[in-house]
Amino acid sequence: MIVALAGGVGGARLAVGLAAALPPRQLAIVVNTGDDFQHLGFTICPDLDTVMYTLAGVNDRIAGWGRADESWNFIDTLRELGGEIWFRLGDRDLAVHVLRTLALRDRVPLSEVTRRLALRLGVRHAILPMSETPVRTRVRTDRGELSFQDYFVRLRCRPRVRGFRFVGSRNATPPAPLRNVLRGEAVSAVVLCPSNPYLSIAPILAVPEIGAWIRRRGFPVVAVSPIVGGAAVKGPAAKLMRELGEQPSALGVVRHYGNLVDGWVIDRCDAKLKPEIEREGKRVLVTDTLMTSRSKSVRLAEAALAHARMLAASRG
Amino acid sequence: MIVALAGGVGGARLAVGLAAALPPRQLAIVVNTGDDFQHLGFTICPDLDTVMYTLAGVNDRIAGWGRADESWNFIDTLRELGGEIWFRLGDRDLAVHVLRTLALRDRVPLSEVTRRLALRLGVRHAILPMSETPVRTRVRTDRGELSFQDYFVRLRCRPRVRGFRFVGSRNATPPAPLRNVLRGEAVSAVVLCPSNPYLSIAPILAVPEIGAWIRRRGFPVVAVSPIVGGAAVKGPAAKLMRELGEQPSALGVVRHYGNLVDGWVIDRCDAKLKPEIEREGKRVLVTDTLMTSRSKSVRLAEAALAHARMLAASRG
Repeated sequence: MIVALAGGVGGARLAVGLAAALPPRQLAIVVNTGDDFQHLGFTICPDLDTVMYTLAGVNDRIAGWGRADESWNFIDTLRELGGEIWFRLGDRDLAVHVLRTLALRDRVPLSEVTRRLALRLGVRHAILPMSETPVRTRVRTDRGELSFQDYFVRLRCRPRVRGFRFVGSRNATPPAPLRNVLRGEAVSAVVLCPSNPYLSIAPILAVPEIGAWIRRRGFPVVAVSPIVGGAAVKGPAAKLMRELGEQPSALGVVRHYGNLVDGWVIDRCDAKLKPEIEREGKRVLVTDTLMTSRSKSVRLAEAALAHARMLAASRG
Repeated sequence: MIVALAGGVGGARLAVGLAAALPPRQLAIVVNTGDDFQHLGFTICPDLDTVMYTLAGVNDRIAGWGRADESWNFIDTLRELGGEIWFRLGDRDLAVHVLRTLALRDRVPLSEVTRRLALRLGVRHAILPMSETPVRTRVRTDRGELSFQDYFVRLRCRPRVRGFRFVGSRNATPPAPLRNVLRGEAVSAVVLCPSNPYLSIAPILAVPEIGAWIRRRGFPVVAVSPIVGGAAVKGPAAKLMRELGEQPSALGVVRHYGNLVDGWVIDRCDAKLKPEIEREGKRVLVTDTLMTSRSKSVRLAEAALAHARMLAASRG
């Protein structure tokens, strides 16, 4: 079994490849919930939805969030009525938020809500929130501490970042199906998807049971670099690395994760960094990592899985 | 000042005429809230919305509820996801439900929520819910007691009706602006709009302060018959009259209200009933009552107001 840790777009795209390469019982996609928030009375889970919509093939590939064939009459009317519109909710997308909010109010666990929604959308692979209980990413910036969505959407990542807090992570509880995986012996590798190290992967690792499990592992951890050619494929990862004194490059990401990751998958355009990354003690696979189509997602996933198998074999 | 009691479509259309004939400070439109209900986590107020949308000119004239230029992507997606879809919520309409639900949760009174929404839609006349606290119409039928929306929307008024209950009416509290009107001396007439006597007007009269105020009145009460040519213009009024042993005609409605109403406005096609209605001790005005356009609403409202003035003058 493979456990993938994923955030938004990059994670979702690699998840598509992993889901194509592996049957449902051999893949668990653990998704960041640090971006989740309450808005207009709804519980909104941006990364869970991005992964779910992308696996279901109903995602908006251009925007990178929300649904394809979306309409915006709700939010347009909300504007006319003087409501808050900084977080844009599509008419189709709303149906997920309404159903999730109702189910959570009825005390259905988030993992079960997600399972039901995903199943309705035709997704058979397990999309698992990192925690059943709320974890909320707070961003410490030069304008004070901000909620994640304030920083990310309302202020468009403009404030200079000094650090992060994951409120609620100390008591965060992974869902029962994930706990079974963590306590079992079935996992052959963990894949860190090319998601933001600070905003997507760090909150997952901050869940005590997940972080402890990865650190005491008997399996390889393979990561796909979210930094390609010195820039983030999407989002503020490179800007954050600079602001936090790290080098915005594939090598910088390698150093950021340190001992947590055994093997790296980096893009061809970063091939020149391979020797330096190897000097950090890592096994490096160089390939195309830009997932601009489904088939490229599948090829990258297969490459990452092959890299993990090689690492497992070399451990003996 | 004129106080109009209104339910859904018929009430809304006469309200348009009254609002054209009277400046905002001379009209209070008191609206039934017995149809209100909780659905998908929202507080939905169908009659308030119909009156508000109709006064704002954004109503769907063909459906008789909801907004014109509506889209249905939310509810279509809700169906795909297995949600409840028997009550159709349009994408634009949803914005009102979301904002109202949020404001009520923040303890803003329903009358104030309604005022803010109406103002945003450009409505300057007062749309006043009959009660700040919930009143819920229950329908006693041959299939047991049903909530109003179960009877009206889900079962499409098919069950045979035996009676009604207005749960919460005993402790219902009219909004402060309406209480000021009820306690003042400014009202020159009350107009019962052509709304369902059982489902729209009766719940309003069941609010103790409103019912007592009308019964001890020093002003005429004028009603526009909701039954034209032996049929309801819209909705189940005639069916209900038959099931409850009343005559489904303008005369039947006159007898239903008895002493509550002083003067009647009936349609030309019911002109032959005029002598019989007069034998009940009522003053009758015969005119066109089908409000198929805005100008017809205005003419009917002006006729009803003239009838009220005549009644007031003849009281001397």
